[in-house]
Amino acid sequence: MQQTWPNQMSELVIWTLEWVPQGPRGFVRDLRLRWACEEAGLAYTVRGIPFDDRETNHLDRQPFGQVPYLDDGDIRLFESGAGLLHLARKSEALMPRDPLGEAETLQWFIAALNSVEMVTVPWWFLGLSGGTENGLDGWTTSRLDHLESVLGDREWLAADRFTVADLLMADVLRIPKVRSHGNRPATERYVARVTGRPSFKKAHADQIAHFALADVHRSTIKEPPT
Amino acid sequence: MQQTWPNQMSELVIWTLEWVPQGPRGFVRDLRLRWACEEAGLAYTVRGIPFDDRETNHLDRQPFGQVPYLDDGDIRLFESGAGLLHLARKSEALMPRDPLGEAETLQWFIAALNSVEMVTVPWWFLGLSGGTENGLDGWTTSRLDHLESVLGDREWLAADRFTVADLLMADVLRIPKVRSHGNRPATERYVARVTGRPSFKKAHADQIAHFALADVHRSTIKEPPT
Repeated sequence: MQQTWPNQMSELVIWTLEWVPQGPRGFVRDLRLRWACEEAGLAYTVRGIPFDDRETNHLDRQPFGQVPYLDDGDIRLFESGAGLLHLARKSEALMPRDPLGEAETLQWFIAALNSVEMVTVPWWFLGLSGGTENGLDGWTTSRLDHLESVLGDREWLAADRFTVADLLMADVLRIPKVRSHGNRPATERYVARVTGRPSFKKAHADQIAHFALADVHRSTIKEPPT
Repeated sequence: MQQTWPNQMSELVIWTLEWVPQGPRGFVRDLRLRWACEEAGLAYTVRGIPFDDRETNHLDRQPFGQVPYLDDGDIRLFESGAGLLHLARKSEALMPRDPLGEAETLQWFIAALNSVEMVTVPWWFLGLSGGTENGLDGWTTSRLDHLESVLGDREWLAADRFTVADLLMADVLRIPKVRSHGNRPATERYVARVTGRPSFKKAHADQIAHFALADVHRSTIKEPPT
């Protein structure tokens, strides 16, 4: 199968918004793909799509109007989770190659998306509306408590090493409201450990710089020098 | 890589609860794994874990206390999404083998879990509490509307054929409240088309029978014949 898989020389392009306000900076999901490329040592470029009309200006590439999406030569993928699995097929740095290690990685990868984030993101979203009642509080507490039990026993989620499952789970958990939800020292140490990796720091700094650069551009357009 | 992958002779075992009340029957997620095995022609057996104490009696196998989980010889996976991807590696009936087809399948598979179900399941859950306000209404409507646009143009989500992405998306969409949410004829036709497959019908009937059999067993235990 390996021979039909795109070789590592394809040009990887990560598409994200060209600009966002301060709030989401450092959290836009192109970071997940940047981080994975950094971990794997894969060359990539980042391209921006206009912030204005972002909900409709790229529906041909992302049918829900979200970012990021990924080009790998002729292969084009939306959903950052799909992009991560695609990158993981290209590099053992992200996913072990033995069936047991791959299965462990896969189960924790999907757990991050569908057991943790499926609860924490809607819970966070409901919290934005500022009501005192959040109907997802109990569910969120339960999922994070279960995870705290797991993380008390191990350094990494799968295969006794860093994998793309840790990249994804740590990114899910580092949302400030999630991270500060309850006293969970093992989870806190885990997030600090995973986001302490040089590849995360570079990806994070690069995203911040990408949006900051667009600040200049936007101000140039809107307030031309007199 | 193929040679290190578990061969198709391993014993597949799908673990689920041995009994559930009427409400969730036909919707417990072991159905996703049964359905995939049926589509792929993979032999499998189903085993039950006790309903009583279900939140804590299998944390060693499923750290969030959920079902199902899957055994494939020595490989053990929790998260039905991970089980589906594992099965898809074993059978082209579930996922095309060319990189373009695999990428398309993967992006729609993850979209089902992380763009649609991440909104619809919490939305459904909030609706159970019976309040008139549901803070996830707008988000749910938006995601289902985007999907309706996509499904108006095509029969299958990926690669012009049935894939595991359709299996998963249709299972996400067939939750009664999701399916009846708004007037979305393309989505309705899609769910009917995918769940009209013989493999779905068999998996569904088998799950219903599995829990019905346990009704007899439970009534035998609790009300021994006089």
